[in-house]
Amino acid sequence: MTAAPNREGKLSALTFAVKELYDVKGFVTGTGNPRWKNTHLAAQTTAPAVELLLNEGATLIGKTISDEMAFSLDGENAHYGTPLNTQCPDRIPGGSSSGSAAAVAGGLVDFALGTDTAGSMRIPASYCGIYGFRPTHGAVPLQGVHPMAPSFDAAGWFARTPEMLARVGSVLLGSEVPELKVNRFVIARDLFDTKDASIASKYDAFIRSLSKLPVEITETELGKPDFATWIDTLRNIQWWELNQAHGAWIFKNLDAFGAEIRGRLEKIASVTRSEMEKKRLVRKQLISRIENLISPGTIIVFPTAPGIAPLKGRSIDEARASRLNTMRHTCIAAVAGLPQVSMPLLEQDGCPIGISFLGARGQDGQLLAAAQIFGKG
Amino acid sequence: MTAAPNREGKLSALTFAVKELYDVKGFVTGTGNPRWKNTHLAAQTTAPAVELLLNEGATLIGKTISDEMAFSLDGENAHYGTPLNTQCPDRIPGGSSSGSAAAVAGGLVDFALGTDTAGSMRIPASYCGIYGFRPTHGAVPLQGVHPMAPSFDAAGWFARTPEMLARVGSVLLGSEVPELKVNRFVIARDLFDTKDASIASKYDAFIRSLSKLPVEITETELGKPDFATWIDTLRNIQWWELNQAHGAWIFKNLDAFGAEIRGRLEKIASVTRSEMEKKRLVRKQLISRIENLISPGTIIVFPTAPGIAPLKGRSIDEARASRLNTMRHTCIAAVAGLPQVSMPLLEQDGCPIGISFLGARGQDGQLLAAAQIFGKG
Repeated sequence: MTAAPNREGKLSALTFAVKELYDVKGFVTGTGNPRWKNTHLAAQTTAPAVELLLNEGATLIGKTISDEMAFSLDGENAHYGTPLNTQCPDRIPGGSSSGSAAAVAGGLVDFALGTDTAGSMRIPASYCGIYGFRPTHGAVPLQGVHPMAPSFDAAGWFARTPEMLARVGSVLLGSEVPELKVNRFVIARDLFDTKDASIASKYDAFIRSLSKLPVEITETELGKPDFATWIDTLRNIQWWELNQAHGAWIFKNLDAFGAEIRGRLEKIASVTRSEMEKKRLVRKQLISRIENLISPGTIIVFPTAPGIAPLKGRSIDEARASRLNTMRHTCIAAVAGLPQVSMPLLEQDGCPIGISFLGARGQDGQLLAAAQIFGKG
Repeated sequence: MTAAPNREGKLSALTFAVKELYDVKGFVTGTGNPRWKNTHLAAQTTAPAVELLLNEGATLIGKTISDEMAFSLDGENAHYGTPLNTQCPDRIPGGSSSGSAAAVAGGLVDFALGTDTAGSMRIPASYCGIYGFRPTHGAVPLQGVHPMAPSFDAAGWFARTPEMLARVGSVLLGSEVPELKVNRFVIARDLFDTKDASIASKYDAFIRSLSKLPVEITETELGKPDFATWIDTLRNIQWWELNQAHGAWIFKNLDAFGAEIRGRLEKIASVTRSEMEKKRLVRKQLISRIENLISPGTIIVFPTAPGIAPLKGRSIDEARASRLNTMRHTCIAAVAGLPQVSMPLLEQDGCPIGISFLGARGQDGQLLAAAQIFGKG
């Protein structure tokens, strides 16, 4: 599928792809699941986020594979296969925006749209060695995008350079990228913890490089009261919202899902309304806590993921444990609806590890500006 | 059209209607325009906001008339007619969520969904004498809702009592309505200004009644630097976003719109990208300003509209002048994405005037709690 640009503009001569969760007029909006795709008709309108790009001259050249119902951080689709992690082909690409990340990393397109509910932009950006942006919740329109868990869902984009990331961002956010005004980096010490000495030395070198800047550097422990509280809050509300939006279809079609995703989908209806309501109250407290830490001008710094992409072919149990560990790194922006950029600044054994900047609500432009300055490593 | 509840729940035995901008599986999503309706197929999924209500036992009994493309505050649809303002039948109902407001005011349903971009929930609530709620931008999912201007769009709801408003709100927001914790009312003096002595005395009596409470009362001028700046910012970005999302269809189908709406749609493409980007910077400044004024615990108070609903049959010029004046009252929540509740507390000549409470970002539950205490007049 393709869609021609509507006119010339800021993105003329560029090509892009969109995760199959985005509505494009005349094409079926898949959800990573073939039965869904085969039982739904073509979308009748194009999602506003896609239209913004076509209106600025970009050419849409394809839709990309997603994890089923966007319900994973791994990028392994049992039906359509696993999009290639071009830099480390024996490793997973990360998901759920796996196909968009692979298309950008592999040079098939100049940029691509994905979505991020619990980490689905940031993890594939880190694993595939590209730039990935999750905007402030609500800053990029989600109309015409298949919902996963709406109070967390965000439309995001990938690029190979921070300049391209910023150029696309200026269109999607409707604002020129501003001059950088950062006065404080906060190092999230607990997310830089690692048992791997070779990674630890790279982390230390990176933090030392930041310390040379004429900017205050402080440290914090992000996981307060503990990451388990953040992750439980995220997963509980996420499951409840996914079940609210799609439970009727999912439970009629469980046999149509891959085994691993099916096993997890079977659990989403276990969240009761009163549990979810309690978690929403916890969420409010967590948001207050993080907002006290991040004012405009403050950027929190941590590795996007606990390490390089895992090897393909893990057991379901290994994958589950790995995802839980990964969510320590992704839960903060998801729960609080804050913007985060992942930059491919480090490597181990030839495979990338992203470094993330997390900003205050609405400071999306500042993160794009920061990535242009710090994103070159 | 109807849709049965998916199961029993908190809204069992209640009926509701939705503005025709909401996707309901199996039915065409209208936009207030017959040509759009006749050239689009039925929606294939139901908007998450509607699904939340069906999942809690409510029965959907119909879709309601909207102004064309949701592009008015008046509620007069050239094709489908003007939904009845039951309390004042010779006056307009207000729009663009006119049909949903009329259905609630007339007792046809227990509650109804509308949308609010620049005032489209609050104005019909005020004119029709019912409760209307505009949530924090992004707090209620907009997936599956026809976009108008996405950076302002909000899903809202109407009810005849503050208890019903809160009950529906607890479902859509996913949170029980909390205990009220307000420590300061701020009277927006410039929006209480009126040349009509009889309204002025009612305003004064209302403000005096607030002053009896054991809560700090202060005053402010909301329209700083001036309302023209707020309104220009809103309209400029709104026109640009509407043109981005639907310009291609609109300009191919201008002949299909009513004369008054057509005249205004013709202008939306006049906003240039650089003008829009400048307005986005102004918007950020305006948001900072209002956020400095409203912290949690603070409620800003003002009349929802400049007065009772205008009489039907105004000239296009009169209607335009009236809408501009009305936008002084609606622009703040729209530009800043803040929650606002309108309560039918005052009357003149037997026609209602709403009083609004505007709260801090995310304090939706507090406004619903406040409406239950102060909403009875």
